[in-house]
Amino acid sequence: MLGSTHGTLTTDSRRARAIACGERPGPAVHGRPAQEGDLDVSGRPLHADVPDLDHFFRPRSVAVIGASDAEGRPHTGVTRQLADWADRVGARLYPVHPSRPSVFGLPCSPSVADLPEQVDLAVVLVGDPLPVLEELAEAKARFAVVFASGFAETGPEGEAAQRRLAAAVERSGLRLLGPNTNLNAFEHFREDLDGPAIALITQSGHQGRPVFALQELGIRLSHWAPTGNEADLETADFLSYFAEQPGIGAIACYLEGLKDGRSFLLAADRAARRGVPVVAVKVGRTETGARTAASHTGKLTGADTVVDAALRQFGVIRVDGLDELQDTAALLARAPRPPRSDGVAVYSISGGTGAHVADLATEAGLRLPPLSEAKQTELHQWIPEYLNVANPVDNGGHPVGDQRGRKIIDALLADPEIGVLICPITGPFPPLSDRLVRDLVDAAEHTDKLVCVVWGSPVGTEPAYREVLLGSSRVATFRTVGNCLTAVRAYLAHHRFTTAYRSPFDEAPRTPSPSYRKAQALMHPGEQLSEHAAKQLLRAYGIRVPREQLVTSAAAAVRAAGLVGYPVVMKASGARIAHKTELGLVKIGLTSASQVRDAYRELTDIARYEDVSLDGVLVCQMVEQGVEMVVGVTHDDLFGPTVTVGLGGVLVEVLRDTAVAVPPFGEEQARDMLAGLRGRALLDGVRGRPPADLDALVEVVLRVQRMALELGDQLAELDINPLMVLPQGQGAVALDALAVCR
Amino acid sequence: MLGSTHGTLTTDSRRARAIACGERPGPAVHGRPAQEGDLDVSGRPLHADVPDLDHFFRPRSVAVIGASDAEGRPHTGVTRQLADWADRVGARLYPVHPSRPSVFGLPCSPSVADLPEQVDLAVVLVGDPLPVLEELAEAKARFAVVFASGFAETGPEGEAAQRRLAAAVERSGLRLLGPNTNLNAFEHFREDLDGPAIALITQSGHQGRPVFALQELGIRLSHWAPTGNEADLETADFLSYFAEQPGIGAIACYLEGLKDGRSFLLAADRAARRGVPVVAVKVGRTETGARTAASHTGKLTGADTVVDAALRQFGVIRVDGLDELQDTAALLARAPRPPRSDGVAVYSISGGTGAHVADLATEAGLRLPPLSEAKQTELHQWIPEYLNVANPVDNGGHPVGDQRGRKIIDALLADPEIGVLICPITGPFPPLSDRLVRDLVDAAEHTDKLVCVVWGSPVGTEPAYREVLLGSSRVATFRTVGNCLTAVRAYLAHHRFTTAYRSPFDEAPRTPSPSYRKAQALMHPGEQLSEHAAKQLLRAYGIRVPREQLVTSAAAAVRAAGLVGYPVVMKASGARIAHKTELGLVKIGLTSASQVRDAYRELTDIARYEDVSLDGVLVCQMVEQGVEMVVGVTHDDLFGPTVTVGLGGVLVEVLRDTAVAVPPFGEEQARDMLAGLRGRALLDGVRGRPPADLDALVEVVLRVQRMALELGDQLAELDINPLMVLPQGQGAVALDALAVCR
Repeated sequence: MLGSTHGTLTTDSRRARAIACGERPGPAVHGRPAQEGDLDVSGRPLHADVPDLDHFFRPRSVAVIGASDAEGRPHTGVTRQLADWADRVGARLYPVHPSRPSVFGLPCSPSVADLPEQVDLAVVLVGDPLPVLEELAEAKARFAVVFASGFAETGPEGEAAQRRLAAAVERSGLRLLGPNTNLNAFEHFREDLDGPAIALITQSGHQGRPVFALQELGIRLSHWAPTGNEADLETADFLSYFAEQPGIGAIACYLEGLKDGRSFLLAADRAARRGVPVVAVKVGRTETGARTAASHTGKLTGADTVVDAALRQFGVIRVDGLDELQDTAALLARAPRPPRSDGVAVYSISGGTGAHVADLATEAGLRLPPLSEAKQTELHQWIPEYLNVANPVDNGGHPVGDQRGRKIIDALLADPEIGVLICPITGPFPPLSDRLVRDLVDAAEHTDKLVCVVWGSPVGTEPAYREVLLGSSRVATFRTVGNCLTAVRAYLAHHRFTTAYRSPFDEAPRTPSPSYRKAQALMHPGEQLSEHAAKQLLRAYGIRVPREQLVTSAAAAVRAAGLVGYPVVMKASGARIAHKTELGLVKIGLTSASQVRDAYRELTDIARYEDVSLDGVLVCQMVEQGVEMVVGVTHDDLFGPTVTVGLGGVLVEVLRDTAVAVPPFGEEQARDMLAGLRGRALLDGVRGRPPADLDALVEVVLRVQRMALELGDQLAELDINPLMVLPQGQGAVALDALAVCR
Repeated sequence: MLGSTHGTLTTDSRRARAIACGERPGPAVHGRPAQEGDLDVSGRPLHADVPDLDHFFRPRSVAVIGASDAEGRPHTGVTRQLADWADRVGARLYPVHPSRPSVFGLPCSPSVADLPEQVDLAVVLVGDPLPVLEELAEAKARFAVVFASGFAETGPEGEAAQRRLAAAVERSGLRLLGPNTNLNAFEHFREDLDGPAIALITQSGHQGRPVFALQELGIRLSHWAPTGNEADLETADFLSYFAEQPGIGAIACYLEGLKDGRSFLLAADRAARRGVPVVAVKVGRTETGARTAASHTGKLTGADTVVDAALRQFGVIRVDGLDELQDTAALLARAPRPPRSDGVAVYSISGGTGAHVADLATEAGLRLPPLSEAKQTELHQWIPEYLNVANPVDNGGHPVGDQRGRKIIDALLADPEIGVLICPITGPFPPLSDRLVRDLVDAAEHTDKLVCVVWGSPVGTEPAYREVLLGSSRVATFRTVGNCLTAVRAYLAHHRFTTAYRSPFDEAPRTPSPSYRKAQALMHPGEQLSEHAAKQLLRAYGIRVPREQLVTSAAAAVRAAGLVGYPVVMKASGARIAHKTELGLVKIGLTSASQVRDAYRELTDIARYEDVSLDGVLVCQMVEQGVEMVVGVTHDDLFGPTVTVGLGGVLVEVLRDTAVAVPPFGEEQARDMLAGLRGRALLDGVRGRPPADLDALVEVVLRVQRMALELGDQLAELDINPLMVLPQGQGAVALDALAVCR
């Protein structure tokens, strides 16, 4: 029993490690080799390769390799569970064991080769699954589920063993779930529940239990994919598959790691295109969490901002608690879509409750439009005149005890400004709350708007809650205001996102731009480029840099200054010079030939004393009067090159006001990055300053993305700091840049 | 029935308005006149005036004015509830009614004057309570509870009527609860529960229901104060009283408004001195919430940052949801105190759960110390070697099924590094979780450390939860990880706070400083002072300003520059000049007599063209090389003058990186303000800059506080911007200041 339903109890942390350490193929490979022409300019696939999992979840025939019905044997429980399950869903079950003639009354095959048919699914319980997998591939089985642990989660030897499992199925038609997984996919899903269902993907069986238990609260669950070590089938495969199943209203995920960033994004993209909401807990907010989940330091540490950005870009709703995962997925699965309005009405039998919930709802970013005068007059037919019905609506209690209660609810739901009705019932008071609950449940049957109830009692055994509210598939019921608001916000955000969504994969470049050849000539593998060379790289990609010349004599500096135009800035230039300003290797505001000559001498003197090797001195146009930003490229283990943009200057560096995006992303997403900066008002112009040239800034971000994609691993790091964004219409200029080649 | 237990349903929003609009006496008066010598320099009291509420909560005799036992009469339910209650607690009940001979078999007095004794408590049910209150005062009753609504919550007329109620009791021994309140104080509190209790204060009866319902989950509640309109007795009175009652482990508050800021702080101070935790929901995070709660715009809007700061200064734990209020108050009431260590151990039967909870706990600011090698070796006696026991501790499931389970728990609780054990049970699996729960409950009986269990099942009807966990008063049981972490963080923060707490009222100044007389001479009622005058005000309070002279001729400017020392800054000076920099009325970096002469001419020219009236031109010492801060004073409706400190400069103004504090506060709290700034690293020195003179900055904040307290309402606004904080040991200089007199 333990092994069957709770097989992951002992192995969760090892599995996390397995996922993190497991095969991480080069960017162009994910699971199966991608087809030609399906790759972007970085060599990574542009389309998810969706496996047909129908026969995995609804197999007509199931083999159990290592089946047992002997009392006390570890595989007996699992075999019994599978036999029961097969019986229920009408699948043919074939026990496989070399010495048993039958198991639970079913005739036993001595080996895989002796199976009476090509099975859809083989559950492999034996400790050494490799030979069995080879036999199954030979026998043209479709899917294998491997329970055994001791693979990538245990270290290098296990990783090698896991690679052998993957290789055993790679060229065959056999797909593998596991190793280190369990039977969660074949649990007893209730079939008496209606409404769209939740499909569940978990990287820890135990962590999926509460979502599974939602069925006891009347919420339908249709699938559960316990992905195990993901040697072959991975989270992304199930995500893509679920996104296309009718009857699935939302996909809930519990994630500790990702096998491959790109394949996950392609799967999320499929869900986004089809408008299927994905809600995910992703462990790794902190280094402790990432380390514990991955059981190895460094690899995923610190990349949580990137994961977070990637999830947001593709509309995946990230939540932190399993309770939020349950409540948000349940609402999204069953909510009408799309909302008729993003206006939320808060309706309660207590002015205090109304004020409190309105406060929290507004804080959560929801919009509570004041009801029209006409609507308020309508409500005051049933609600005493002295009570506030502007929104929140306080009915004073008594009207819900008679026929007025339902009229109030219907009047609120009829308001075109209102798309969501939230009714917090803080404390049960049966004479009122029982009727209120029945009215809400009934009204929800007759509307296409979202009706949410918060049952605030901490007890939770009241019949109005257990029988009436949980008996409705139309009312979204919560136990806390916080989770209700989180879920409603997710519902509205999901539909806003879906409506505006354009897949960045459709527009991702497939072939190098003409800039690429120019850039190639500038790259020096393993070196940090000089400022001058880095700027030439930027120019190759159409990013403006100041007028500047690299000179190697004082006389040439004076000539250059004349061409560049006074005042000028002079900087020491050379590979691997960091902290130029701190070393005194930058001179600004030089207005005459004599100042330029002096500066040349001073810079070269300092360089000599500081033992800095120069390729010359840069004489640059001086650019002022803009907003200093930073734009850069870094590499993420999961997602490859990422693009960062933020406010520049020392103050904001301290405040770390930056946003990151994972390619591919489009112009709108680049604008979203800027909108998310705390100091974005600076770009709009403050204290009488003109607004900055946002379009030019967005263009730089997109050009840097192009550069990152085309140069890929060759460009280890790029940092434009500062990028001076000039007033609207005047562009943006990269005043300094650091580029490191790999 | 409705009127009795849910009497507040209809009146919550009106009550909120009543509190906000109600009498707001001058600062020196709160409830009762303060005694001489008990006032600080701002004329406000330094000690809470704590009423003796013993006879309110445990009256020996109760009169019911307007009692009824007639079927269908509105007062019958309340009378019955009181009669039952009096019977249960052994109080003598006296119905009062002019025409009934008896009520529920008790002899009726025709009027208050005819009562057979001086009653401890009179419950006034009649619609016009004023004459009754006068009679009760005459009859020397101790407490009156007034149900009637229609007072300050309805507008100016009601406010006047409420003032008359307050006046009727003001000079008597009678204290008044209400109007617009109910019988929540006299509900049936369970007496079969043990452990320290929660005492509850609510400004909405309905909103208190879930905390009251905690008794059904085994958590003891000892008092409930429904404060109504607070015409006389207010939240602060109950807070002070509860803080001194033995057996009360925590005070839970639901607040919409405060009658008087100072009286609330004095009450919170009493709780802080005694180490009694106060947990509060305070509506008003948003304008919508504040407006709805107060039912009038403006008064409390936007002051939430001040409320938040005030609560934090006095250790009141603010939470947002009623579920958090319940869970945090329940934990604080029953937790051992103080913690033996702030180290938290996360212990689970699943590595996935452990990783997830460790991640969220770390994110929440809790410290999960890695267990020592010796402890890990000890744990590995019972936990398989391949599982991670460093913290989080993953036992793999099986060990909890036998005697190893309890040994692991005891070993964790014996670790001196660990003060709190958190055991999340994500899904119930009775063979394991039932025994785990019993072991935890038993272990908690034998430790003085905090044991927390998160029962993660959304169902909540499982016997292990209902019977075992809820049956223990030693284990803190939660339904969500989020609420558990919120409560544990509050527990640790509360004890850190209490240990370090020094009441700022003990050190608050009572008499004006010598600076006060100097300052008086500079104030010009109703005017904005010139920069020069504002700086003199600062100098009067010992705050350093640059060397500067106010001059009225170019020749004088040159002489002044010589005395001040080159380079100098020159600024136009006059009352009511705003935006000096934008108008070109500031010249910086002047290095010669001719530049000073030119600048003088230019400034006076611009002033003439801009129609700005000058009292002269300031020639100031130029101060660079520091961190620009802002320090200011504003007035808050609830709390009077408040002091703000923040980072200066345009970038940080955009980011609004400021902290506010409510006087009185001490040096430590001033330092806490700085520590809370996002950009605080700038003060520590970044990019090779020296650390700033923090001590000098703190000194300026404290001097500004002194100024704010002494000048009180005379100083409508003060804004030092920028205050240049020089490198350590060099002080801080106010480079510009704006002061507005009232």
